[in-house]
Amino acid sequence: MTDETRETMFAPLFAAGWTLTDGRDAITKTYQFANFIDAFGFMTRAAIWAEKWNHHPEWTNIYKTVVVTLTTHDAGGLSALDAKLGDKLDKLAGGTIG
Amino acid sequence: MTDETRETMFAPLFAAGWTLTDGRDAITKTYQFANFIDAFGFMTRAAIWAEKWNHHPEWTNIYKTVVVTLTTHDAGGLSALDAKLGDKLDKLAGGTIG
Repeated sequence: MTDETRETMFAPLFAAGWTLTDGRDAITKTYQFANFIDAFGFMTRAAIWAEKWNHHPEWTNIYKTVVVTLTTHDAGGLSALDAKLGDKLDKLAGGTIG
Repeated sequence: MTDETRETMFAPLFAAGWTLTDGRDAITKTYQFANFIDAFGFMTRAAIWAEKWNHHPEWTNIYKTVVVTLTTHDAGGLSALDAKLGDKLDKLAGGTIG
């Protein structure tokens, strides 16, 4: 992927709070929820989408915080799948019907 | 907690593959599952126990791997709650009825 393609493809996610991951061709976002139930509820919905699409996040949960990193191992870096999953995660986190 | 108390309380977990976390008064274990569904299924069962006991893990999931760190923030380090949750996680990961 060229830098220009990447910039275009991920512009909406960068505008939504995603950033390039330090030292990797990946994107990262930190979500904060009201409590653990909301945080893990988000992860549960996201997990089913991830499995359905066979594209899985790297993620860390500490109580009401979830830090997500997306990259495409098979592609050696970012791909259109990451843009698609990132957008889905934002919708799930916002309560939009997934 | 004295070093002796800690050693006694966590001896069964150390024997089961838990180790002291670098630079923290915490314990860590890495679980490997057959696939993402098994890994996240383990997390889902563990999440409900964690919420029920009001004691939550710090954990990272990458596909079929789950890395768990346990500590008791209110106690500023390890407590009996961590021993209890660590034992529960091992039972859940092993398929023992939780």
